[in-house]
Amino acid sequence: MRACLVLFALLLVSAATVALGTRDPEVQQCREKCESERHLDKERRQRCFQRCEEKQSGDDIMEGRSESEEEQGQNPYVFEDRHFVTGMQTQHGRIRILQKFTDRSELLRGIENYRVATLEIDPQTFVVPSHWDADSVFFVARGEGTLTSVWEDRRESYNLKQGDIMRMRAGTTSYVINQDNNERLILVKLVKPVNTPGNFEAFFGAGGENPESFYSAFSNEILEAAFNTKRDRLQRLFGQQKQGGILKASQEQVRAMSHRQEEGRGGESKKGTFNIYSQRRTHSNQYGQLYVVDPSQHRQQLQDLDIGISLLNITQGAMTAPLYNTKSTKIAVVVEGEGYFEMACPHLSQPQSEGSTSRGPSYQKVTTPLRQGTVVVIPAGHPSVVVASKNQNLQIVGFEINGSNNEKIPLAGRRNVINQLEREAKELAFGVSERQVDEVFKAQQEEFFFKGPRHQQHQGRSDE
Amino acid sequence: MRACLVLFALLLVSAATVALGTRDPEVQQCREKCESERHLDKERRQRCFQRCEEKQSGDDIMEGRSESEEEQGQNPYVFEDRHFVTGMQTQHGRIRILQKFTDRSELLRGIENYRVATLEIDPQTFVVPSHWDADSVFFVARGEGTLTSVWEDRRESYNLKQGDIMRMRAGTTSYVINQDNNERLILVKLVKPVNTPGNFEAFFGAGGENPESFYSAFSNEILEAAFNTKRDRLQRLFGQQKQGGILKASQEQVRAMSHRQEEGRGGESKKGTFNIYSQRRTHSNQYGQLYVVDPSQHRQQLQDLDIGISLLNITQGAMTAPLYNTKSTKIAVVVEGEGYFEMACPHLSQPQSEGSTSRGPSYQKVTTPLRQGTVVVIPAGHPSVVVASKNQNLQIVGFEINGSNNEKIPLAGRRNVINQLEREAKELAFGVSERQVDEVFKAQQEEFFFKGPRHQQHQGRSDE
Amino acid sequence: MRACLVLFALLLVSAATVALGTRDPEVQQCREKCESERHLDKERRQRCFQRCEEKQSGDDIMEGRSESEEEQGQNPYVFEDRHFVTGMQTQHGRIRILQKFTDRSELLRGIENYRVATLEIDPQTFVVPSHWDADSVFFVARGEGTLTSVWEDRRESYNLKQGDIMRMRAGTTSYVINQDNNERLILVKLVKPVNTPGNFEAFFGAGGENPESFYSAFSNEILEAAFNTKRDRLQRLFGQQKQGGILKASQEQVRAMSHRQEEGRGGESKKGTFNIYSQRRTHSNQYGQLYVVDPSQHRQQLQDLDIGISLLNITQGAMTAPLYNTKSTKIAVVVEGEGYFEMACPHLSQPQSEGSTSRGPSYQKVTTPLRQGTVVVIPAGHPSVVVASKNQNLQIVGFEINGSNNEKIPLAGRRNVINQLEREAKELAFGVSERQVDEVFKAQQEEFFFKGPRHQQHQGRSDE
Repeated sequence: MRACLVLFALLLVSAATVALGTRDPEVQQCREKCESERHLDKERRQRCFQRCEEKQSGDDIMEGRSESEEEQGQNPYVFEDRHFVTGMQTQHGRIRILQKFTDRSELLRGIENYRVATLEIDPQTFVVPSHWDADSVFFVARGEGTLTSVWEDRRESYNLKQGDIMRMRAGTTSYVINQDNNERLILVKLVKPVNTPGNFEAFFGAGGENPESFYSAFSNEILEAAFNTKRDRLQRLFGQQKQGGILKASQEQVRAMSHRQEEGRGGESKKGTFNIYSQRRTHSNQYGQLYVVDPSQHRQQLQDLDIGISLLNITQGAMTAPLYNTKSTKIAVVVEGEGYFEMACPHLSQPQSEGSTSRGPSYQKVTTPLRQGTVVVIPAGHPSVVVASKNQNLQIVGFEINGSNNEKIPLAGRRNVINQLEREAKELAFGVSERQVDEVFKAQQEEFFFKGPRHQQHQGRSDE
Repeated sequence: MRACLVLFALLLVSAATVALGTRDPEVQQCREKCESERHLDKERRQRCFQRCEEKQSGDDIMEGRSESEEEQGQNPYVFEDRHFVTGMQTQHGRIRILQKFTDRSELLRGIENYRVATLEIDPQTFVVPSHWDADSVFFVARGEGTLTSVWEDRRESYNLKQGDIMRMRAGTTSYVINQDNNERLILVKLVKPVNTPGNFEAFFGAGGENPESFYSAFSNEILEAAFNTKRDRLQRLFGQQKQGGILKASQEQVRAMSHRQEEGRGGESKKGTFNIYSQRRTHSNQYGQLYVVDPSQHRQQLQDLDIGISLLNITQGAMTAPLYNTKSTKIAVVVEGEGYFEMACPHLSQPQSEGSTSRGPSYQKVTTPLRQGTVVVIPAGHPSVVVASKNQNLQIVGFEINGSNNEKIPLAGRRNVINQLEREAKELAFGVSERQVDEVFKAQQEEFFFKGPRHQQHQGRSDE
Repeated sequence: MRACLVLFALLLVSAATVALGTRDPEVQQCREKCESERHLDKERRQRCFQRCEEKQSGDDIMEGRSESEEEQGQNPYVFEDRHFVTGMQTQHGRIRILQKFTDRSELLRGIENYRVATLEIDPQTFVVPSHWDADSVFFVARGEGTLTSVWEDRRESYNLKQGDIMRMRAGTTSYVINQDNNERLILVKLVKPVNTPGNFEAFFGAGGENPESFYSAFSNEILEAAFNTKRDRLQRLFGQQKQGGILKASQEQVRAMSHRQEEGRGGESKKGTFNIYSQRRTHSNQYGQLYVVDPSQHRQQLQDLDIGISLLNITQGAMTAPLYNTKSTKIAVVVEGEGYFEMACPHLSQPQSEGSTSRGPSYQKVTTPLRQGTVVVIPAGHPSVVVASKNQNLQIVGFEINGSNNEKIPLAGRRNVINQLEREAKELAFGVSERQVDEVFKAQQEEFFFKGPRHQQHQGRSDE
């Protein structure tokens, strides 16, 4: 793979230069730099200071850093396991949060205010109630469960099954159980913080020592007055829970909560969630299916966030047409299967002397193997292709930022945009006869999903 | 008070390191740092350069700086007298402007585009007409007055009294009189600049040397042509006013302007302003009252800004329930009385080694005494409590950013969110029996406003 | 011209200090600074690194830099030829793009997400189809042409003539011909990127080596499968075009495409474009005319962008009233003629010792000669005047950011805002009798456009 961005090559040179300095002034400079970077969010800044300390302790951080930047330089659009941090983990499940997009690259500044998180819960397991200072939309990637939200005067429960989509409003207190006996429940979330762009926190009220309850941050006299209760009784209540935020429930507890949900659910479940498989299937043939949810179709849940959602099912050995989204940036998460991805990425234009002939942009290939959990960002206007491996279907859920009035424009296949050019436009643009253009652009009879390439570029790697 | 954020402790270490350097290179480095900080607004950058010069002059700036950062570290959510700058001051009144929120902390980046200002005017005093490059909403905290707005073809006057709320659109030319004989008129403004996020300016057309008229910035030949008037006559007009922008009016002048307003007002006053006390009182008992204005209720004034407004009246010795706003960040300004404030603030999560057990967030107490003029920022989702001192009622006006569809969720009292949990959820979450949970969460019979704590933490300090 | 901002004078001091250092550490520091400036967009960052390299090669970069900053300090609101970069250029036309506003000054941060571009095309010339990852609105400043947009299932053509305005949605593939035999076609575009604030790219699908086709970024096996076509045939198609993105068409080709457009156009042209001269003429007299398009009048094209458009025609030797926009920032581009511009710019307030008397803002004059292609940014609330030279009418198109509910407030002439003040307000504000105020503010009988000044300040310069 060639490096996509000259910029990052320059960064490497610069990093090497820094490495020539002596140890101590370096640490000092490092701290000064961190201090001056007040535009950074707290997480990133803390990491900045940490890196300085690691320098001092003699670790050869430059090595690691160069690698990291080289990798970023090659492809700032792909995120894998190591780009997630653990928000919470017990022996029964975990919440993982993808790094901030702008911590990866300034090129992703347009989606800075969005985060991706996944929640994985073991069978017969309970997630302690909490609220987040963020709006979110989640997709049930695997398993079944029940989510319950509470307010001061009511409670609503929703059954979750694979393919379900649900909006969680900022500040809603909710808890989840996985009532299945065998399968994990996996949710993929797109999170939009409401306080600080790109940063959010979970707030646990119920709890004790672990998860810590936010009640314990208040003064004792405040709590005594608020609860009209003596201090010792309060301490007994808020000191018991030590098992963490994701914990095993007994069969009775699971059954009780599931039972109650069945009863109490009524029409709510219909209002609160909808399933991607019951949505418009915009394209479908033997090579794959595309399901699309437009923000205007689910006003209550998606319109104010302007988020669209799509599900791509690609048959093993098949591929999508090269295509682009007109105005959405798509955050794609691989739910199942393997394959690979290619995207045309416009180059940095070379600085030019005044008055010279300028060629306009050129394009580099961005490519990556895909496996479960891989996250890919596809900016608007960028042509891209997804290929399923020869052994497995590939399933990808996409959150489409700026989703309203977005169109997917196919660049090959039966209905492609080039076929609509006038004869003279084809001839002038390609510099050949219309016949030669049509020979290529009219040879593919399928639409949107095609038979994939005979030899798969990443086949070896993704099958390792 | 414990430090809320580890981050700021690290800053102190770093600042100390800088202080070890020699003087001159330090000044140079300082200037380079300021120069490189192009993301700063002009005010802050100028302050940056100033600080460098102060270093050169031998002042021990490090001392002051460390203090300032320590204080910020402890509590970036509270603003007092010293965090205001004077926008304009004469012997008859003043305009004060709170520092930019992001000059205080990156944690406040979500409200970066908002500013708080106060206008204090003596009895029988006139504020010279001006327009601002900012939208604003103001609350009349004390006194009575008349505000008049002018356009090219009309003039409208509005009587102002305590509790009135009014929207001022960007670019509207207006002036104010305090026609009372004894009482000051005090307005509290939330300002949203339209040109540069977080920065705004006042434009005085009428005026002369002080306040300076913007007409004098134009070339003489332009003014001569524009006014069809000779230069000497122009210089006479624009050179007279030297008393400043807030000046004493004669009784006749005040009466004339008040009279005309009474006449001309008619229905306008009803359209232009509304009073908080005539709004929905969402909660009320012997311990306090809450008045809330939703942006959707006053579409003309508040909807496009998405600002809600609330007024909290807490009886002496009483307190609010611990509660949080689901999606609004609240900028609260103490209008009258004394008391104190506590908030649970989620900690920086400690960086963890891969695969280890992660506990999720923990919470620190943010606390501050409250007195007239104190400004507190309460981010969405953060549980907080306000307590009135034992001697005085406490009155707080709140501007609620992202006000539409915001809910206040009570965490104790008759209707609280924990009471809505299912039995099994209570037991699993707290690790105790439902009975033990209910003993605490059902003991307080009041709703929203409660009898306050017996011993007030900040009582001593706020009564000094 | 006096310097508008004290800030930039400080920058010069700082730059001079840097210049005293030795060469090599300077280059190193330079690179470190560039590296640390992660908040910069890629273009600017690359330029940062470039500047470091130029230092190393011994060029006296400081000289040039000081000049540039001095100029910026004097007037960050004016852009001329040298502030454009060439996006694409062949011997038959070019696309030029104005530098990012925030690369010029942080004062322009409020319009950071907008860019200005111009497209100039020779007679009988064709622009190869492309799509942009940006929304845009363009104004036909000169000439006639035809623009055709294509989608997967349809094609629409629009005739363009001087004064036409058209919205191009992000991701729309389109091409342009200039079918005239003699005149160039000139479009002025306001561009709003959808991916990264302030950055956009063009995507050419049709093409070959020059313009490069984005198809060539994909792997051969992907293209073979997508097009169901052998590699050699693909290479033949995507290797032919070498003439660049703007190329000469034969008379037959031009005729064929024009013919087809006449036929196919039908009602579309009416829906797709509208002409500024058919819009509301809000002001008109012998000295000039103002045409204004409000975003609410053309919902389909302008409302979601909240962009208004205005056209100012000033008769030779005439001028506009001093006026300000209440909430729009106006990006004005000189389409024809010469003249000059003056604006009142509020000063940095001097830092003041606590409790002292504060005068409020003061105002500096920002002034510049105007000639074809000059771009001027006029922030909301800032009073400004435009004067046409004595020899030529002056024509200026304005894109008004935040266009809805904007008002233009005249500060002199028959209907001006000062005339609406009450008698007492005039007397108090100016410190003179009402008669003296009225003598000046009622002398000019014209409205909005006036006879210009006798001696024009910039006449000499702009006529050189």
